Amino acid sequence: MAEIHRSRIEQLRNAMRRNGIDAYLIPTGDFHNSEYAAGHFHTREFFSGFTGSAGTLLVTGEEAFLWTDGRYYIQAAAELEGSGIALMKMGETGVPSVREYLGQNMKEGSVIGFDGRCVPCAEGMALEELMKERGACLKTDLDLADGIWSGRPPLPCNPVMILDDDCVGEEIGSKLERLREEVRDKGASVYIDSRLDAIMWLLNLRGSDVECNPVALCHILVDERNVYLFIQEGEITGELRAYAALHRISLLPYEDFESFLSVYDYKGNVLYSPDSLSYGVCQAASRAVLKTKGGYRLISAQSPLEKLKSVKNATELANLRGCYKRDSAALCRFIKWVTEETASGSKDREPLTESSAAAYLDHLRSELPGYVELSFATISAYGPNAAMMHYEAVPGVSDAELRPEGMLLVDSGGQYLTGTTDVTRTIALGPVTDQMKKHYTLTAVSNLQLMGAVFMDGCTGMNLDILAREPLWKECLDYKCGTGHGIGFFLNVHESPPSIRWKVFPGRKDEPLEPGMIVSDEPGVYLEGEYGIRIETILEVVLRKENEWGRFLSFEPLTLVPFDRKLIDVRYLTPETKELLNEYHMRVFAEIAPLLDEEGRNWLREQTMPL
Amino acid sequence: MAEIHRSRIEQLRNAMRRNGIDAYLIPTGDFHNSEYAAGHFHTREFFSGFTGSAGTLLVTGEEAFLWTDGRYYIQAAAELEGSGIALMKMGETGVPSVREYLGQNMKEGSVIGFDGRCVPCAEGMALEELMKERGACLKTDLDLADGIWSGRPPLPCNPVMILDDDCVGEEIGSKLERLREEVRDKGASVYIDSRLDAIMWLLNLRGSDVECNPVALCHILVDERNVYLFIQEGEITGELRAYAALHRISLLPYEDFESFLSVYDYKGNVLYSPDSLSYGVCQAASRAVLKTKGGYRLISAQSPLEKLKSVKNATELANLRGCYKRDSAALCRFIKWVTEETASGSKDREPLTESSAAAYLDHLRSELPGYVELSFATISAYGPNAAMMHYEAVPGVSDAELRPEGMLLVDSGGQYLTGTTDVTRTIALGPVTDQMKKHYTLTAVSNLQLMGAVFMDGCTGMNLDILAREPLWKECLDYKCGTGHGIGFFLNVHESPPSIRWKVFPGRKDEPLEPGMIVSDEPGVYLEGEYGIRIETILEVVLRKENEWGRFLSFEPLTLVPFDRKLIDVRYLTPETKELLNEYHMRVFAEIAPLLDEEGRNWLREQTMPL
Repeated sequence: MAEIHRSRIEQLRNAMRRNGIDAYLIPTGDFHNSEYAAGHFHTREFFSGFTGSAGTLLVTGEEAFLWTDGRYYIQAAAELEGSGIALMKMGETGVPSVREYLGQNMKEGSVIGFDGRCVPCAEGMALEELMKERGACLKTDLDLADGIWSGRPPLPCNPVMILDDDCVGEEIGSKLERLREEVRDKGASVYIDSRLDAIMWLLNLRGSDVECNPVALCHILVDERNVYLFIQEGEITGELRAYAALHRISLLPYEDFESFLSVYDYKGNVLYSPDSLSYGVCQAASRAVLKTKGGYRLISAQSPLEKLKSVKNATELANLRGCYKRDSAALCRFIKWVTEETASGSKDREPLTESSAAAYLDHLRSELPGYVELSFATISAYGPNAAMMHYEAVPGVSDAELRPEGMLLVDSGGQYLTGTTDVTRTIALGPVTDQMKKHYTLTAVSNLQLMGAVFMDGCTGMNLDILAREPLWKECLDYKCGTGHGIGFFLNVHESPPSIRWKVFPGRKDEPLEPGMIVSDEPGVYLEGEYGIRIETILEVVLRKENEWGRFLSFEPLTLVPFDRKLIDVRYLTPETKELLNEYHMRVFAEIAPLLDEEGRNWLREQTMPL
Repeated sequence: MAEIHRSRIEQLRNAMRRNGIDAYLIPTGDFHNSEYAAGHFHTREFFSGFTGSAGTLLVTGEEAFLWTDGRYYIQAAAELEGSGIALMKMGETGVPSVREYLGQNMKEGSVIGFDGRCVPCAEGMALEELMKERGACLKTDLDLADGIWSGRPPLPCNPVMILDDDCVGEEIGSKLERLREEVRDKGASVYIDSRLDAIMWLLNLRGSDVECNPVALCHILVDERNVYLFIQEGEITGELRAYAALHRISLLPYEDFESFLSVYDYKGNVLYSPDSLSYGVCQAASRAVLKTKGGYRLISAQSPLEKLKSVKNATELANLRGCYKRDSAALCRFIKWVTEETASGSKDREPLTESSAAAYLDHLRSELPGYVELSFATISAYGPNAAMMHYEAVPGVSDAELRPEGMLLVDSGGQYLTGTTDVTRTIALGPVTDQMKKHYTLTAVSNLQLMGAVFMDGCTGMNLDILAREPLWKECLDYKCGTGHGIGFFLNVHESPPSIRWKVFPGRKDEPLEPGMIVSDEPGVYLEGEYGIRIETILEVVLRKENEWGRFLSFEPLTLVPFDRKLIDVRYLTPETKELLNEYHMRVFAEIAPLLDEEGRNWLREQTMPL
């Protein structure tokens, strides 16, 4: 494999030379700053071979580097081997960021190239400024992959679906009103956005252009009276046309967004978020607004849609609670099945593997009411494979056989009309070592301590993160990723602003948690070459009490799947966390048992007995 | 009292009218952005009657407001009563900040006045910008108190002392070298600073111009070759003159700083911190640098001295450890004495009061080796008085008699040649209620949980704060102040950057904790009209372990004074915190017993027996 990527990079270098480019940057992204992008945009993977969901490739005349974060250190090291591409571990001391690297290495007159449509505006502008300081310049109107990547998938284009009000709980008119109020509050009258999940949320639409992310490629411009939705013709159904007419949404061609921005009749300032637009669109909007006679300007602020979308309404919350119960019951069925099947090890059939186990779980989910698709490719990782946080088993490439020993880590979730789920449990398939039990129990304590937190209104994930990490830090262990992320409602499985981490990425604002927000709680222990443990429970932020000291918030778990008692070593449970675990298990049994058959109920009763 | 302040404010309004000023701002500060200022600068207290250490008075033609923080809500409400000045509780929801208030209330053409020398540069510049937006303007070259305040104390002026190297552990030459390196790293060649503790630290000097703060009024300019110290003639001893000559420090008149800045021959950019200079000096420097032909500029950054000063060196740490042991032993003697005296209640003498008890403690400290003065006025607060976080007993005004019941809160510390101490213990003087015991025990758990923290290099106080608050938050209780602050070495008792709080003040950067930093750990419960509990232990940040996950840090307590076992209700101690408390008490006994007489040792043995 390495030779293919070496040769592709050589072709890229040739194209760079033809275009007078000294360093070419390939981020992981589409035109919408999406976390997961359709195949058309898998340029970084095409050139480097690295398949992770986050990373930036930089190619210079002599060298090539790939930056990625802690979730992917192990996987990237394996996938890059022999490619000649150096791995840059983001966040490690002494490792420069992409920008720092460019700042240090680009000289007067250097030309840095990238596809401006695939780079978020904030990043592009920061690079622009840095390069100006260095006397270097940017060339951002070309996509060098185009001439090299034969067989590149076309832009995805699938019909859009309209959601019922009893599914999402708020009409499009009310959402638009709230958005316009926020836009006015910020001193603007026009709002532009390219973030797919934000637009889907606002218009109560869903698409299927990105695997596992129910979004459609589109851009939007909202002013005081009109809504302009830029979307491919092939995505528009008769129903959408009627819906658009009813709500006075103009449907315009997807590819016309930039040119529309230059002819639009601006009547006020334009609000945008540098996270929500590409550098290319941002430049176009900026040029257009500058030309207007009204003296209007672009106002940069966090997208109001981010916050509006992240606080779930009563209907969404009610739907989510039901959705998580059914999803949890499916995972319970799976855990029972996979432990029993592995233990019995019948000779009549092929032994279970990581991927065949995952396929069975995916099948269980697919039978649930309102199921649409998975919310991400199921991670089914056995033994040492689980040390790679985002490992994906691929039959024929890497697909370990499940044996009646050690641990299986399963991180999975579904997209349903009633919500998006995400859950991880680590399961003992047979005998385990004392160290595994210790590490599992510490992870359980981490998970429970965060789940049981009480905190004041105004607290952010940065304030809370240590509740999850402290049990591991006390043993001088750590996990190299955040503790939690926000989750959409039948939308992206990773949704900002909610975030639980102790370090905040530069430029990213740490937002307070609010009742109605949904966050994951997923501490873990990952020992390279040995095993990986993660326990992920999804939590709803709720108001606990308001008194003279202020408003106190806490969490309620949405995920209701037992922890694995075979992996618990009670010596590492504090009495407090033991009580939390017993309470959680009581709740799991009370809520999930009714969804199981008798055999399942008996199994669940045993799993949730007080410790 | 209220009438005096009403009339002073009326006089101020007359002066404002004469000078065409619509709103006059009186911060709590000297020309050096000091937290505690000499009497000459107590203008806010003169006009408002509020004696707290932090607050801003704003007087308009019709109204007057005083902003202060949670430590002073209760005290300020009492002191402002009848004055016509409205209390603005900083940080409470719905209460605008000074700047927000001015932004909302100043109109086109309004004039806001303040003494530019008494306002930190960052604040002045923010106000300037805000007022520009509103079409209002600033008048900052007058001190309206001057014509009104007869009997105003003159500027303090006391001889400066030079510290030995075996006291501070680093020669002035080495400190200057480290400073110059940081200045060069930031692209500058000149450094200016007005922060008194920073300059004292840099030059290994101490003064006595501000009560409890061993600093001398001065400013400094350091360039690649020279050091210019601006200091009053009366502060200069023969010894200082010789020392200055030896280290090539030019001694210039204190009041000439601004004019020197305008004639100085700039040969590079000028580094300054907007926290370290007054708005007045900053404006002067800015005008001067703009006039130079070299195209130089002012570079604004956090003062490198802040960080350098906060990480104590091996000598300072060794001195501090000894200093805290002796100081802790003195407090042990005091606790034994005050509980026994109150209990015995002899009729031969006056009953003890808050202030007479404090006087005895102050006396015990004054007998310790290297004692210079108190590090702040001892807080001795009995019963409901302790609910005021920074209460000060004043004989004849407020000085409660100590009775053999309830709790006495004592927050105190000393300035020694070997360090600055700060410690709070809350002491049962007799029977206490179950609720007092519950709240004391929760506070103890809070204190111990933070003391026992293990955290990764890079963590800030914002990450750690919840370890102290969570036990109280779980009971829906809170304390309206930070959990901890940094402490100087024979310098100011409050020293940044270390800080443990969950909300960061806007504009203030949350800096990672590093080995060698010293922070306080002081959670509490304050019930207005009932009682106050605070337990404050000073902690040293130490390196615990370095492994494949990174560098793990933890704390070692410097303060070694027992918690009050009569106030502990073991039902609220978790097994983990019980163990932490027993370990702490073992250590207290081992380290402090040798410093006590036999009776004291016996008392300490009882206080530190395992629970």
